[in-house]
Amino acid sequence: MSLLLWVDLLGTIAFAISGVLTAMKKGLDPFGIFIIAFVTSVGGGTVRDLLMDAPVFWMYDLMYIYTIAGAAVFAIIFRSRLSYLRRSLFLFDTIGIALYTMVGIQKGIGAEFHPVICIILGTLSACFGGVIRDILCNEIPIIFRKEIYATACIAGGVVYFAASYGNFPSWLQFGLAAGVVIAVRLIAVVFKLRLPSFYPQSS
Amino acid sequence: MSLLLWVDLLGTIAFAISGVLTAMKKGLDPFGIFIIAFVTSVGGGTVRDLLMDAPVFWMYDLMYIYTIAGAAVFAIIFRSRLSYLRRSLFLFDTIGIALYTMVGIQKGIGAEFHPVICIILGTLSACFGGVIRDILCNEIPIIFRKEIYATACIAGGVVYFAASYGNFPSWLQFGLAAGVVIAVRLIAVVFKLRLPSFYPQSS
Amino acid sequence: MSLLLWVDLLGTIAFAISGVLTAMKKGLDPFGIFIIAFVTSVGGGTVRDLLMDAPVFWMYDLMYIYTIAGAAVFAIIFRSRLSYLRRSLFLFDTIGIALYTMVGIQKGIGAEFHPVICIILGTLSACFGGVIRDILCNEIPIIFRKEIYATACIAGGVVYFAASYGNFPSWLQFGLAAGVVIAVRLIAVVFKLRLPSFYPQSS
Repeated sequence: MSLLLWVDLLGTIAFAISGVLTAMKKGLDPFGIFIIAFVTSVGGGTVRDLLMDAPVFWMYDLMYIYTIAGAAVFAIIFRSRLSYLRRSLFLFDTIGIALYTMVGIQKGIGAEFHPVICIILGTLSACFGGVIRDILCNEIPIIFRKEIYATACIAGGVVYFAASYGNFPSWLQFGLAAGVVIAVRLIAVVFKLRLPSFYPQSS
Repeated sequence: MSLLLWVDLLGTIAFAISGVLTAMKKGLDPFGIFIIAFVTSVGGGTVRDLLMDAPVFWMYDLMYIYTIAGAAVFAIIFRSRLSYLRRSLFLFDTIGIALYTMVGIQKGIGAEFHPVICIILGTLSACFGGVIRDILCNEIPIIFRKEIYATACIAGGVVYFAASYGNFPSWLQFGLAAGVVIAVRLIAVVFKLRLPSFYPQSS
Repeated sequence: MSLLLWVDLLGTIAFAISGVLTAMKKGLDPFGIFIIAFVTSVGGGTVRDLLMDAPVFWMYDLMYIYTIAGAAVFAIIFRSRLSYLRRSLFLFDTIGIALYTMVGIQKGIGAEFHPVICIILGTLSACFGGVIRDILCNEIPIIFRKEIYATACIAGGVVYFAASYGNFPSWLQFGLAAGVVIAVRLIAVVFKLRLPSFYPQSS
């Protein structure tokens, strides 16, 4: 489980930085920035834990709060350089959703939920922090607006369970599924893919 | 309890279709449409179960997810005809809130809450899915904007408990209360009733 | 614990009145006004209890609902005079957050959480009702917009735990911390303090 812990930590940092940058674009004060970083980072997992009736993870392990505070301070200090790094930021965010999807699926499996529910839990973990962030900033949540976001998480989740029929070692199954999440999202953005729309183009 | 199950299923379908139509009006992609259908359908019950500290219903019974997915696909395919059917849609939505109010009250009674809390739980079950839908779509929730929505649920809930003093068979008590929810809302819309306002008309 | 109960009741009334006034400014109907009063009043504590996996307080003690309903009716009847009393309203709200912060911290301590988590729980109790109110009214939550709001709660929480190293009687420790919350907010508003901003003034 030590691997999962590292994955979790990395995802937390990635999302915290992505939250800081969103909050600064909105012109929030330092406290608002920290809240948005915190919510972006732990919001999805919190909803997941509430739905599972599991203990809310960050309340029993202060590591998360300290990590987010550290990442927020770091991102604020180096903000002028981070703005040159939008592209790596996008990478951070993409890595974050891949890692969180896997964490959510693992937790769902641990509580013996059906694979469909596990994939939903993984997708929630990955996407809902961003949804809450956008609601707090009074925007239509990003997952409804652009980029194949949640779809990438679901694809990764399906691959994860499909791979469990092969006899892969767990780290490979894990890496394969996380890789699919990242790949789907990268390809979607690079080729400006969207899900097909039902609406006449003229509108 | 078999009656309650059917009622629940019908309410789920009604709300899912109502969610699909709202999402399509907003121009969301297929995934967004499914999410909005899902949230409209199970959002109220999820909040109810979280507040009651009961297991979240759709996580332990995949029937709901499959039903919503089916209803969403159905509504997307027949969308051009559904748009001719706005009026029946309104009916769907009205039936949905009546049924969900009853489900919520039943669950509250089962957990031995006070009638006032049961009525709140019923109203929450019926209305909160729509509230979350509207928040996600970045609108002021409909229950604050028009139609005697939650008021109808509360009226039905009061009738339900009032009827428990008569010696009605349970299906009659049930039907009576659900009928009141539907009647209040239909009358309100037909006669364009609103709750009295405190504000000067000139504003 | 009788002191805590009074504090809780006063905070409930203060927040309910503050909710009624916000809702009336938005032109909501009587039902919407009651919902907003209710949500402003119990929203923060509800989120706190869900996170702690504690029973949601207002579901097991109808006193809260009756108090809020009473305060809402009172505020609606005397609305024309309350509008002359904006300043006392601000006081109500300030007293409300001070009291709720203390209630949240006490509950966190009772459940043996780490002081950092207790301060977060106190801040959540105090601020989150207002956040939900603003989300429902489709505004960017006030804590991101103006006034050192959450910062006051955190300051009070830190003082509370710092004071626990002195040998103060518990009512003094309590009053000291609540006083700090009130003082920080009053000073901030009177002197129009804000947290330092990172953004160039010209923007």
